[in-house]
Amino acid sequence: MSSDMPAGAAPLPVTPRTSLRRHRERGRPGRADLYAVLDAGFICHLGVVADGCPRVLPTGYGRIGDTLYLHGSSANAGFAAANGCEVCVTVTHVDGLVCARSLFSHSVNYRSAMVFGTARLVTDDAERIAALRAITEQLVPGQWAVARQPTAKELAATAVLAVPLTEASVKVRAGGPSDDPADCELDVWAGVLPAALTFGPPEPDPALRPGIGIPAHIRARVTGSPPGRPGV
Amino acid sequence: MSSDMPAGAAPLPVTPRTSLRRHRERGRPGRADLYAVLDAGFICHLGVVADGCPRVLPTGYGRIGDTLYLHGSSANAGFAAANGCEVCVTVTHVDGLVCARSLFSHSVNYRSAMVFGTARLVTDDAERIAALRAITEQLVPGQWAVARQPTAKELAATAVLAVPLTEASVKVRAGGPSDDPADCELDVWAGVLPAALTFGPPEPDPALRPGIGIPAHIRARVTGSPPGRPGV
Repeated sequence: MSSDMPAGAAPLPVTPRTSLRRHRERGRPGRADLYAVLDAGFICHLGVVADGCPRVLPTGYGRIGDTLYLHGSSANAGFAAANGCEVCVTVTHVDGLVCARSLFSHSVNYRSAMVFGTARLVTDDAERIAALRAITEQLVPGQWAVARQPTAKELAATAVLAVPLTEASVKVRAGGPSDDPADCELDVWAGVLPAALTFGPPEPDPALRPGIGIPAHIRARVTGSPPGRPGV
Repeated sequence: MSSDMPAGAAPLPVTPRTSLRRHRERGRPGRADLYAVLDAGFICHLGVVADGCPRVLPTGYGRIGDTLYLHGSSANAGFAAANGCEVCVTVTHVDGLVCARSLFSHSVNYRSAMVFGTARLVTDDAERIAALRAITEQLVPGQWAVARQPTAKELAATAVLAVPLTEASVKVRAGGPSDDPADCELDVWAGVLPAALTFGPPEPDPALRPGIGIPAHIRARVTGSPPGRPGV
C-alpha cells in the first residue's frame, strides 16, 4: 500500500539471485508485478543468517514507494542482528490447490515475491512513524486515523527494518493442471480448488465500551465469502 | 499428516535457537503443538544460506513421524545446495487481525512453527515415494490413492529434502487486543477479525472427460464458509 508509488512499468533488474532457473513462464518481470504481490498481503517471511545458520521469521510489513518496511520489536535479537546484513524477504499468497490426473502434475496456484537486499534499522523518528503507518494500514486500512497514536515509550519498544526494493523476483502460477494428453484420458477428476485468506465477521472485544459499533473500514476488511464464490 | 505419529506428549528440547526471548507466553513447548501447526498447513518457507546470503523459498511439505519432507525439483539449485546444510523451515497460519484502541497493541493472531536442522536430500526410492505421498496427502487428502503414480522419469525430476523434527519452536497468539486499561476508555472499536485460508468450490479442468464428477475427498477439502461463520 503506498500513496507515492512510482511508475511500476519498469522491469526489475535480473541478477544471479533473481534469474529463474525453473518454470521461467511463471516469472513476472515488472516492478508493478512486485508491488501487486507485496500490496496484497501483510505477513512476510524474513530470512536472516544468524551464527551462519538461516532463520526465517514471520512478521508484518508495509511498503512506501520502493522501500519495504518490516515490523519487529527492539527486544527481538534476530531483528537487531539484521541491521546492515543481507536479508531475503518472501511474501507468498496461496491461490489454489491444483489437482491433476497424475500425482506429478499436482501443484499449488500462488503468487510470490522474493526480495533480496541489505536491511537497515530505521532510526529516524519521522521515517519510523511513516513506516508504522504503512504497516498498520497494510493490516487494516483506515486504522491509523482512528486508533491512539504511539507514545515515545511505545516507539522505543518497536523496531522497523527497511529493505530496498531493488532486487526481487516474482513468480505466479495460475490456471488448471498441466497433465500430459495421455493422462487426460484417465478416469480421474482434475481441476482447481480456489483458495484465499478470508476474513470472517468482526468479533468485538468483550471489554468494548457499550455503544461502539463496528466502523465501516473494519467491515470493509471482511471478505464475506469463500474464494471462487464472489458476492455470496 | 502422519499415520505413525509417536506420542506427542514429550516437550521439545530448548536450545539457544528455540528459546523465546519475547512473548514467552506465546510459546508452546510440546511436540504435539509442533505436529498440530505443521499438520494444519501445506506450504512452508524454507530458509537456506546461499553464497553467504539468506534465501527463503516457499514450498510444499508433508510429515511422517519426526521427519518433515519438503518438495522440490531436481533442477532447483537452492534445493540441491541445501543437502547437508543447516536450514530453517517456518510454517505460519494467520488466524486473525487484532484491532486495538492503541496502534501499538495491534497484532495478528497466528500459529507458527520454526524448525531448525540439517537437511538431507532423500535418495532412497522407497523413502522418496513415502515422502511424496505425505506431501500430496497434505495438499489434498485422498489424492494419492486416485491419481496416476509417478514414473521413474518423474521421480528423477523430483527432489525431496528431509529435515528432522528435533529442534523447533512453536508460537501461538490468540484472543483479543491487550490494550492498557486507560486505553479501554477510548471511543475506538476493538476486536478481532478472524482469518483463515479457505477453499472455494472445485473448478473442474475444462479438458475433463465428461461424466467425471467431483469426488467426495475433493468436496471434503472445501471450507465452504468464511472463518468465524462455521456451518454457513
